[in-house]
Amino acid sequence: MSITVAAYATQSATENLAPFSIERRTPEKDDVSIDILYCGVCHSDLHYARNDWNFTIYPAVPGHEIVGRVAGTGSEVTSFKTGDLVAVGCLVDSCRTCASCEEGLEQYCDQGAVMTYGSLDYKRGKQPTLGGYAKNIVVNEGYVLRMPENLNPAAAAPLLCAGITTWSPLKEWNVGPGMTVGVIGLGGLGHMGVKFAHAMGARVVMITTSPDKGNDAMKLGADDVLISSDKDAMKAQRGKFDFLLDTIPVGHSLNPYLLLLKRDATLAIVGAIEPMDGFHAGMLLARRRRIVGSSIGGIKETQEMLDFCAANGVVSDIEMISIDNINEAYERMLNNDVKYRFVIDMASLK
Amino acid sequence: MSITVAAYATQSATENLAPFSIERRTPEKDDVSIDILYCGVCHSDLHYARNDWNFTIYPAVPGHEIVGRVAGTGSEVTSFKTGDLVAVGCLVDSCRTCASCEEGLEQYCDQGAVMTYGSLDYKRGKQPTLGGYAKNIVVNEGYVLRMPENLNPAAAAPLLCAGITTWSPLKEWNVGPGMTVGVIGLGGLGHMGVKFAHAMGARVVMITTSPDKGNDAMKLGADDVLISSDKDAMKAQRGKFDFLLDTIPVGHSLNPYLLLLKRDATLAIVGAIEPMDGFHAGMLLARRRRIVGSSIGGIKETQEMLDFCAANGVVSDIEMISIDNINEAYERMLNNDVKYRFVIDMASLK
Repeated sequence: MSITVAAYATQSATENLAPFSIERRTPEKDDVSIDILYCGVCHSDLHYARNDWNFTIYPAVPGHEIVGRVAGTGSEVTSFKTGDLVAVGCLVDSCRTCASCEEGLEQYCDQGAVMTYGSLDYKRGKQPTLGGYAKNIVVNEGYVLRMPENLNPAAAAPLLCAGITTWSPLKEWNVGPGMTVGVIGLGGLGHMGVKFAHAMGARVVMITTSPDKGNDAMKLGADDVLISSDKDAMKAQRGKFDFLLDTIPVGHSLNPYLLLLKRDATLAIVGAIEPMDGFHAGMLLARRRRIVGSSIGGIKETQEMLDFCAANGVVSDIEMISIDNINEAYERMLNNDVKYRFVIDMASLK
Repeated sequence: MSITVAAYATQSATENLAPFSIERRTPEKDDVSIDILYCGVCHSDLHYARNDWNFTIYPAVPGHEIVGRVAGTGSEVTSFKTGDLVAVGCLVDSCRTCASCEEGLEQYCDQGAVMTYGSLDYKRGKQPTLGGYAKNIVVNEGYVLRMPENLNPAAAAPLLCAGITTWSPLKEWNVGPGMTVGVIGLGGLGHMGVKFAHAMGARVVMITTSPDKGNDAMKLGADDVLISSDKDAMKAQRGKFDFLLDTIPVGHSLNPYLLLLKRDATLAIVGAIEPMDGFHAGMLLARRRRIVGSSIGGIKETQEMLDFCAANGVVSDIEMISIDNINEAYERMLNNDVKYRFVIDMASLK
């Protein structure tokens, strides 16, 4: 049994996204059926649609920054009721029994989490998962977030990936008042990193090659700008940073940044999921510095982030599009021509 | 005022070490004068003698794994008296006022510590420091360690560098019972890493390309061996390690090792002070893994290590040499032909 749902899909790595009908499962007893209002457009959507990572299953429906309203619930669902404003991020299931799942860190599930798109759902006959560029999605209630009603739901959509990806390492490494935090790179991730680190009470420095982006970051909450191509400025800031959030989306050298860290301080990579250049180990040894990675966030911390956003008025800066502009939006995203996240108004999908 | 002391020095990057007379300062009120009994031979000694790091000051006297007896003390020294068995490691002074110094982590001193050799001693007219290949050394009491009398003093000498370099990260990252620790590389550092991790109660796995070294490591306390060139074996051990101590002394790729780490687990680089190959950031993001560096240790933790060694009977495996064999020992060290540390019997220096 399944429900036919209008969506946007691509049929191959070289084709545009176009209208397509998909099937969603009839809600199981612990499922929530969600009518999608908004879906953010993540760089991963583009990578997946174009098979940049060589694991795309076609037809492919991207989208993992989903906000919607509950359309119906399975018989045993207790946390949500029809009409609730809810959200779905990058995960729709996981083993639920490994240590990471038990700690609420489902993104690090030993068996691998079931991602919102591009996974074979091993609990349901290995059906390929299809994302949020659609009118509706059906998700187990344990992987549905409660979206606070006081947030602009469109501007809140990117919190589900860009938001949690930057929130999680900032929390894990205890960013707060008295700390100086550098955010490297100002895109979808970086602009949320600036907003969160500022809202957490840290002194925030935007680290960028572009003075224009520096100015933009000041409007988002940065206290200062460090131009990474200015060698004297970089040298003057050596050993001044408690934490660096590295949001650069492609492989790069860490050498220019490592010396900025204090003793025992951490550089967290959240943007690049690819080979990095070499680094000089002496920079790590010299002050016991750390390089770490961090990947999205678990359900529990995602809910905590949404509640923090509601309490502190944090949302993304977005540009709303109708779904028939998605292919153009991808091109603009490739050209870094978006401040800072496209969000699809799903009412535009007929 | 100064004291003339017999030593071994080299006059240039291409000359052998040879007998040479050096001057030590007359002990200041808080100084300890130490007659050197034994001095370990560290790979850094060779790098320094041959100017591999481009900062050698000639004439150069290496040596920073020093054990000796107190020959005299300044008027205000209270911690040591003539005849005490003592030790000096890599550090002989630091600013004493920065946060790192106040925390007992003088190796990370903001002003840079004064190293036992190769530093310009900025508290004493920028005189070049001269190391332990000598009959005597004069050191501020705050940088002198108490050597437990129940340890073999020759075998204890390498604890001052090879020992503390491996001890410090194992303690910092809370290695203990219930943990699986991989030691990568079996040389002067690696053999101490195996002994310490074993003595701390961890399950120890020697990670090496050489089955012979694997067998040797089992005799030193390793519980298991993982041959890093065996792809199937490496794959089977993915996600099994709580901590990796990377003692490889030259630049290398971390990619083969990162996947061995559990979630939130750490690979600590202690051997390579040079450019590393690139690594795949996805391996860090996937389980929030960490790469850190660690450099020798502070005075407080070095004393703790010596006391631990006394309580647990831990010393280095050494080969004793007379000082006129030092040049041959360097060549053998370059060929990895030592198990695991040369120690100079300073009685051989006339």
